[in-house]
Amino acid sequence: MSYFREAINFMEEYIPGEQPEKEGYIKLNTNENPYPPSPLVEKKIKEALGLGKISLYPHPLGGELRERAQEVYGLPLDWIVVGNGSDELLNLLFRLFLDKGDRVAYPFPTYTLYRTLAFLQEAEREEIPFPPDFSLPESFLTSPAKLKVVCNPNSPTGTFLPLSQIEKLLSLSSCPVIVDEAYVDFAPCSALPLLQKFPNLIIVRTFSKSFSLAGLRVGLLFAHPDIVRGVLKIKDSYNVGILSQAGGAAALEDMEHMRKNVEKIKSTREWFSAEMEKLGFLVYPSQANFIMARKERRDLKFLYEELKKRKILVRYFPQWPDSLRITIGKEEEMKTLLDTIQEIIGRVNV
Amino acid sequence: MSYFREAINFMEEYIPGEQPEKEGYIKLNTNENPYPPSPLVEKKIKEALGLGKISLYPHPLGGELRERAQEVYGLPLDWIVVGNGSDELLNLLFRLFLDKGDRVAYPFPTYTLYRTLAFLQEAEREEIPFPPDFSLPESFLTSPAKLKVVCNPNSPTGTFLPLSQIEKLLSLSSCPVIVDEAYVDFAPCSALPLLQKFPNLIIVRTFSKSFSLAGLRVGLLFAHPDIVRGVLKIKDSYNVGILSQAGGAAALEDMEHMRKNVEKIKSTREWFSAEMEKLGFLVYPSQANFIMARKERRDLKFLYEELKKRKILVRYFPQWPDSLRITIGKEEEMKTLLDTIQEIIGRVNV
Repeated sequence: MSYFREAINFMEEYIPGEQPEKEGYIKLNTNENPYPPSPLVEKKIKEALGLGKISLYPHPLGGELRERAQEVYGLPLDWIVVGNGSDELLNLLFRLFLDKGDRVAYPFPTYTLYRTLAFLQEAEREEIPFPPDFSLPESFLTSPAKLKVVCNPNSPTGTFLPLSQIEKLLSLSSCPVIVDEAYVDFAPCSALPLLQKFPNLIIVRTFSKSFSLAGLRVGLLFAHPDIVRGVLKIKDSYNVGILSQAGGAAALEDMEHMRKNVEKIKSTREWFSAEMEKLGFLVYPSQANFIMARKERRDLKFLYEELKKRKILVRYFPQWPDSLRITIGKEEEMKTLLDTIQEIIGRVNV
Repeated sequence: MSYFREAINFMEEYIPGEQPEKEGYIKLNTNENPYPPSPLVEKKIKEALGLGKISLYPHPLGGELRERAQEVYGLPLDWIVVGNGSDELLNLLFRLFLDKGDRVAYPFPTYTLYRTLAFLQEAEREEIPFPPDFSLPESFLTSPAKLKVVCNPNSPTGTFLPLSQIEKLLSLSSCPVIVDEAYVDFAPCSALPLLQKFPNLIIVRTFSKSFSLAGLRVGLLFAHPDIVRGVLKIKDSYNVGILSQAGGAAALEDMEHMRKNVEKIKSTREWFSAEMEKLGFLVYPSQANFIMARKERRDLKFLYEELKKRKILVRYFPQWPDSLRITIGKEEEMKTLLDTIQEIIGRVNV
């Protein structure tokens, strides 16, 4: 006998990528940043520690972090929510909008957390396959769903939708539309300029990728104040601690540092994508800090496993067995990966 | 028109105590600890910062923090969940057990977050008034609710239920029973020894009170592995950051420091309670780090407001207007408070 809600017993849970407890891995499986965050982050966290305020509750709305976000992103404070990573913000949004049986639509494949969050709300999932060019499917644009989500750049493919398509989606949708911009700093542009025009647009960001702060748990949400009020109503009062607020604020004070890291990663991405194509992989054009490499009709589990044996972690999704998602690390790491892949596939003759 | 679930529009939200942005307040309104945490906390957080791992995702299950909890509380790892404060853990539990229309029961008055969490799940609330002696009401013991919650020591009253009553509750309940032990380190004993006997017992703890770490956001949940598995299934993968894990683990390495602070607070509590009684307040016997002081049939809002003008913050709940909840601070702070209350009530002749 289970005490749980029936939906919990039957739901598929989200399985995050491995976080190896042992040292010595080249870790290219969860899209972390290979370069350290701005030195200002450590400095400001130490300062916050020194203030002796760790025994007090943090600012419920994010304090200085929200103020810095206001400056950097040019939005009033009441358009901004600070979250315990963007996962918490996505979780809150699904809970805010979706009653049991309501429909949530998203193009597929995408971040599998959306499916888990839909299960949690007992929402009906409308998972619409991307066409081969990864544009937005017509039936997604016109779906009468209660909530739409699009990850841009998309994970696990890395593909990017131009602003004109996001604008078309917003125009054709009478429901809230979440644009998950976890990877947007690696892409040409953001949907931010559309916020003023579309009160149904919600943008979600994370500090885990471009800002090199996955360990700190910081995310941001941008939306019309009417939506922000709802999120604040249901979030835990003290969802982001004092040190995360200080570190996140510091990261936003040194945008130059983040941008330099992003440029290095983008350049490695272009070179690495070309090398993977030379090895016979189909590589989706990526605007993120990872690539999806595919061998059509081959199960690449063996490659994932052989790499793991050699202490290189990449991401294998059982639902897309002919592809691997590979985070862009440092150039040396990617060279080691290329050599290792060559060695493995030379041997098994893929 | 609102995009929100209808329940969200109608729900009462939880209003946390004020966190003043200006300095210079004597802050006795949110039950923080007036003494700093163990010096080991700062040391270990700085060490964690120095390891350069802040760009990596944290251990999804709490890493070293969970291991330390295993040692300190004498429970196997699979009986422990680490949370982003105990609020997150309570939130997860309500979401795990309660479908729309299911009944959640708790004695009242208590922590008002339970009401908010019930609203969020559209659960039916069975709020059963405590009898004058603050024992568990018979109808609560025998309620056929889907979930029961008891805060022990209770907030805002500070009153404490002996283990025999918790045991009786567990014996008579076929549903999961949450014992919220946020303040238990200030009380004579915990329900921990009952865990092995009652697979429906769930204990929730926080580091915000006895451990002086409200700013870090750390909580713990102890329960049978079957329940733990459900909580892990629905929690955000990376709910507690690297620095909070390090700081929480450090706090558990120095239990002696926490216990000394607790002893000081308990001694101040006994003295302060007696002084408040001399001033004509009814003071509930408290086993927490706060007291509830009452003047029957008087609205104490004026006292709260006059104290605030003099930069002393205590907690006034509009639903219990004849009482103030006062955190136990340092002895000097409580002396200042007593003098100030005397000055105010002397003047207005309460």
